[in-house]
Parts: sequence; C-alpha cells; structure tokens
Amino acid sequence: MTRSPQYPQLDTPCAVINLDTVDRNVNAYQAYCDKHGIALRPHIKTHKIPAFAKQQIDAGARGITCQKIGEAEIMADAGLDDILLTYNVLGERKLARLRSLFDRIKTLRVVADNEAVIEGLSRAFSDSAKPLEILIECDTGGGRCGVQSPDAAVVLAQKIQSLPGIAFAGLMTYPAAGGGPKVGGFFGDAMAKLDAVGIDCPIRSSGGTPDMWKAHEVSNVTEHRIGTYIYNDRSLMAREVCGEDDCALRVLAEVVSLPAPGRAIIDAGSKVLTSDLLGLEGYGCVVGHPEVNVVGLSEEHGILHFEADLSPFEIGERIEIIPNHVCVVSNMLDQVHLVRGDVISTVDVTARGKVL
Amino acid sequence: MTRSPQYPQLDTPCAVINLDTVDRNVNAYQAYCDKHGIALRPHIKTHKIPAFAKQQIDAGARGITCQKIGEAEIMADAGLDDILLTYNVLGERKLARLRSLFDRIKTLRVVADNEAVIEGLSRAFSDSAKPLEILIECDTGGGRCGVQSPDAAVVLAQKIQSLPGIAFAGLMTYPAAGGGPKVGGFFGDAMAKLDAVGIDCPIRSSGGTPDMWKAHEVSNVTEHRIGTYIYNDRSLMAREVCGEDDCALRVLAEVVSLPAPGRAIIDAGSKVLTSDLLGLEGYGCVVGHPEVNVVGLSEEHGILHFEADLSPFEIGERIEIIPNHVCVVSNMLDQVHLVRGDVISTVDVTARGKVL
Repeated sequence: MTRSPQYPQLDTPCAVINLDTVDRNVNAYQAYCDKHGIALRPHIKTHKIPAFAKQQIDAGARGITCQKIGEAEIMADAGLDDILLTYNVLGERKLARLRSLFDRIKTLRVVADNEAVIEGLSRAFSDSAKPLEILIECDTGGGRCGVQSPDAAVVLAQKIQSLPGIAFAGLMTYPAAGGGPKVGGFFGDAMAKLDAVGIDCPIRSSGGTPDMWKAHEVSNVTEHRIGTYIYNDRSLMAREVCGEDDCALRVLAEVVSLPAPGRAIIDAGSKVLTSDLLGLEGYGCVVGHPEVNVVGLSEEHGILHFEADLSPFEIGERIEIIPNHVCVVSNMLDQVHLVRGDVISTVDVTARGKVL
Repeated sequence: MTRSPQYPQLDTPCAVINLDTVDRNVNAYQAYCDKHGIALRPHIKTHKIPAFAKQQIDAGARGITCQKIGEAEIMADAGLDDILLTYNVLGERKLARLRSLFDRIKTLRVVADNEAVIEGLSRAFSDSAKPLEILIECDTGGGRCGVQSPDAAVVLAQKIQSLPGIAFAGLMTYPAAGGGPKVGGFFGDAMAKLDAVGIDCPIRSSGGTPDMWKAHEVSNVTEHRIGTYIYNDRSLMAREVCGEDDCALRVLAEVVSLPAPGRAIIDAGSKVLTSDLLGLEGYGCVVGHPEVNVVGLSEEHGILHFEADLSPFEIGERIEIIPNHVCVVSNMLDQVHLVRGDVISTVDVTARGKVL
C-alpha cells in the first residue's frame, strides 16, 4: 500500500502541490501544442498564482486566460502582459477597469456574444489609440454563453467592425466534452461566411482540459485554452486524461474521529474540497485507500465510509485526497504549500476569490 | 411581480444583507429561547462577522459557537468571550493555539468524542490553573462525529475526570433533521448513567436550524446552537422553517448573456453560490421569478432556464438570488454589503476561509 507523506511541518487541512508534477504537466502539454502548432493559452483559474502563470509562459505559452477582471489585474501586476478575458464585460465600473488594464499591458483581448456588450466596449474604448480586439464567443454545444450560429457570429463581427475603438479578432468557444468536431464545423462555417463578407478571422480559440490531447484534431483551431492540466484532478482521472501520479495538488487532511465501524471523519470538508461532483460519486479519492469512499462533506468535516471490518486509519493519521475538481479547491484557500523533494514553501493564492 | 432592488452603487456579483431582516431573525429566535428557558449559542459559521456575533450576544445569547480555532481567534480578538468550539482538536500546533485562546478569554469549551483527543487536551492543559471544560459529542443519528451510545459517553466522561487539566461539563450533539426525540432519549439515558456514577452533567447542547422551533420539545436540552437562522436560505424555505421575506442575504447578480430562447447567463457561479444542493433541485431561487430555474453553475457563470417563449430578462438586468445554503456563500466572499433603508455599508467577512 502507498503510504501518504505525513508532512509534520504543515497543519491540516491544507493543499500540497508537488512541483515536479507541475513541471511535468506544464512541459508535456506545451510540447504537444508546439508539435501541433497550436498556441497554448493556459487558464489561470486552476492555480490563481502568478508564479505558475509565469512558468507557463516561460515554457512557451502564448499568453494566459482569465475569467474576471480582478484576476487579470493580479496577473498584470505580476508582469503577465498577454491576457484573454473570456467574459462578457458589462457596466461602467467594469468597463473602466478593463480600459485601465488595457492601457497598461501589451495585449488584452475580450470576448462578447451580444450587441449590448459590444456597444459598451466600444463606448469605453472609443478614444483608445489602438482598438480593443474582441473574439465572438460561440456556443458549440456547451450550452452556456455564445452565439447560436455562424450567421449570428458574422452579424456581431460586422457590428464590431462598424463601431469605434474595437476590432474583430476571431472566434472563441468553450466546447462540451467531446465537442471537437462541432467546434470544427461551427468555426469552419463562420470562417467561410466571414471571408465572404471580407472579414479576417485570425484567432480561433477553443479550450477545455478533458479533450486536451485531441486539440490537434480540430484543424481550424489556432489556440487552446486549458486550466486544470497543470494540477489535474479526480474528474480527469475518471475520464482517463491523467493518472493518479499526474495529480499535483492533494488535500492533506487528518482523521479526527473514528466514531463507528466503517466510518472515519476527517478535518477537510466543503470549505476545502467543495461540493463539486462533476458527475462523480463521492467527494474525492483517498490516495492509497481505494477501499475508502468520501461519502459526504459538511463545511468542516469529511465523512469516509469503508467496510465495517476494516480499520484503515488511526485517529490523528494524515491522508491525502485528490479532489474531484481542483480549480474550485484553489479558490477556497488563501495559501497553498509547494513541495520539491524535502523542501516545502508556502505561497499566497493571490487571485483567489476575485469575483469582480 | 416583485421588482428586485438594483443597487446601482454595487458591482456584481455580491451578497447584500438586509439588516432589518437580520434584526427580526435574531430577536425572534432569542425571544423563543428566552420563553422556553433555553440558552442560545449561535454558530458564527453562517455570518463569520464579529459585529453580528456581538449583536447576537447583545440580544441575549449565552455565547457563540465556532467550528475552527481560527474562527474563534477572530471572534476573541473582537471581544467575544464565551465560545464553544464544537470540534475534536488534535495535534500540538492546534492544542497550543487552543491553550493560548483559553488563557485570554472568559470561557472556552471544546468537545471530544474519543480518548486520543481527550488525552491531547489533558496534556495541553495539565498546568492550567482552571480546567478546560469538555462536552462529549454524541452521535444521535447525524452520522458524523460522536460516541455511539450513552455507555460510551460515560466511559469518556470518566476518562476526562481521571485526567489533569480538564473537566467534564456535559453532552453535545448535532442531530439529524427531525432528530429531536432521539436527542432526548440519548441525553436522558446518558444523564441517568452519569448520575449513577456520580458525574454531574450540567450542559446538554443540541443544535440545528431546521428544527429550531422544536428545540423546546426536547426537555433535557439546556442549550441550542444554530447558525443559519440569522440569514435563512432556500433550504429552510423548502423545509417551511422560514419564508422568502425572512431571507436576509441575497446574491445580487447581473444577466450577462441571453444566448438562446429559454436561457439566460448570469455573472454569479459556484465561486459565489457554491455547488451545495442540500437535497434541492437547482442552485438558488430567483426572487420575483418563480418561472426561472438556476439549472447549472460553472465557476463564474450561472445558467438560468425558463420556458422558451418567455423573456423575463434583459442583458445587464440585475436579479437577486436566495442561495440554497447561505453559510457556504459567506465563506466565498471577502466582503458583503449591509443594507438598512437607503444606506449601504460594506464589511469584511473576517472569519472567512479559516480552515485551521
């Protein structure tokens, strides 16, 4: 049986990140993108830590992806200077912050999927020396934001080209898992229709870690955005995108109670692991203990079940859990611990909780 | 149709708390406890804000409940001086912090449900001038921590009485919803067995908001711990514990996309509302829009569905959502906004994210 490291110098619950695993994950996918001529634009939502964003850039990534202006501001403060903000920005407050950010970094692009957003962006950038480049978000089956048809993308591209301060730069989508062929079809149709009205479409940005190794199969995609690949998690293990050894972030927890046969209680609850299931059963996988299920979480307690005749744990024993969804775990913690060999350091999750 | 306040001075997503509703919730339950002679010990996990803890004390609460030492430290810093920590404290680091906290406030009690925890507490308090009082946590059907039988409670009470630095003070449970009769039975048996061996059991602490109005039916309970009642939420509306007007905290969100008939996307996702379902369908209730369902959340997006022939929203429109589980929403936000009439103020959620 694999014994989990105990890390006596750390207090539980906490997140421990193996830097060798991070290096391997970052470099492997960069090599894949380089081989296939795809620009990699990692999404910082998974780590929310500028040092990891810089590592991704140093490895060869084109730029980074942020979802919120607050995240992008943190990354810009740390020197990241090529950011795609994959969100409809609305309202005078957010538009003023977007403009201020745009004016201080090399490259900032945004997305839009409707006229109200485009008109707001044009107002905020009408006096800008260089235009704000906008990608049209397309719904290729994800069922979230995005125009519903290539024709609708063309209408919005023409709208952008007609207004001051902004310029159309391409297409963006966050596909459903397995949605690569639909992305290719949607983007191909839209590119042909844009070409027919004389509009260039240089950037075609897709994303998602579940299909990361199939990105090259969608030939008209120029850029891939992924976040989770840097840490990986149980949801990606379940999809066979990675193995347990590729999971860089583990939640270190301690057994605080063994109240009844077949039950153990740990000090990591939904305030660390979150309630995200991502279609899985249970709230994480206990490293080295396939016989144990994390059947429930309250805010400060995790409830583990196992066969009543087993005694896998002692009170005070530490266990490692690979979370279902690692991005949301990063968002719960003010700090995480980084491990390389015997050396442990602690870093702030600087862009945590940036909801604005 | 109820029109939601728009709060143009606030940026979205955010949490807005109606102070008149807070006052009414705090005072109504204090009056109930006063009437029935039950000591109220509110759990600060719902608000994580010292000012609200003080309001609860000023209204007549006996003390407060915290789950983590980090929360209790924040509350003690703000002057709260009677704290019950309802958690098994283990490990030298946490025990040292517990002792330090104990030495600086009037009253600090903890719980325990096993010998390892009791022995650790005794070691940490063996040289204390006054003993640390411990309640034995009992599993009365909740299936989390707690001894499984009244006999086991007696064994641990005797263990506590045999060790230096600590003293047995009573029983504690977090019951399953509807578990009042089981609490009464378990506590009654344990009290009789303790009495038979000459051990006093002055405190019998139960808790939970779902059964808050039935607390008096369990006659041997001296103290009730509840958290959610100060704000209330959709889970308590579903259990008919409160109505919509009793829900003090609402998430203010903005419609950022209307991509397709029957679908709207808002800027509040799981980073604000969390993925907690608490047995409900959907991720919150949209105030004034019973025809709309919050069917999905990703981290920064909420997905609303409604009949395809309806057009309930415009892009940029603001909506209010009553979350499924309000305690976990407090934990997502560095700040919340307080509203009294036309006056809005902003406070830090000081005890947010205290996992240690």
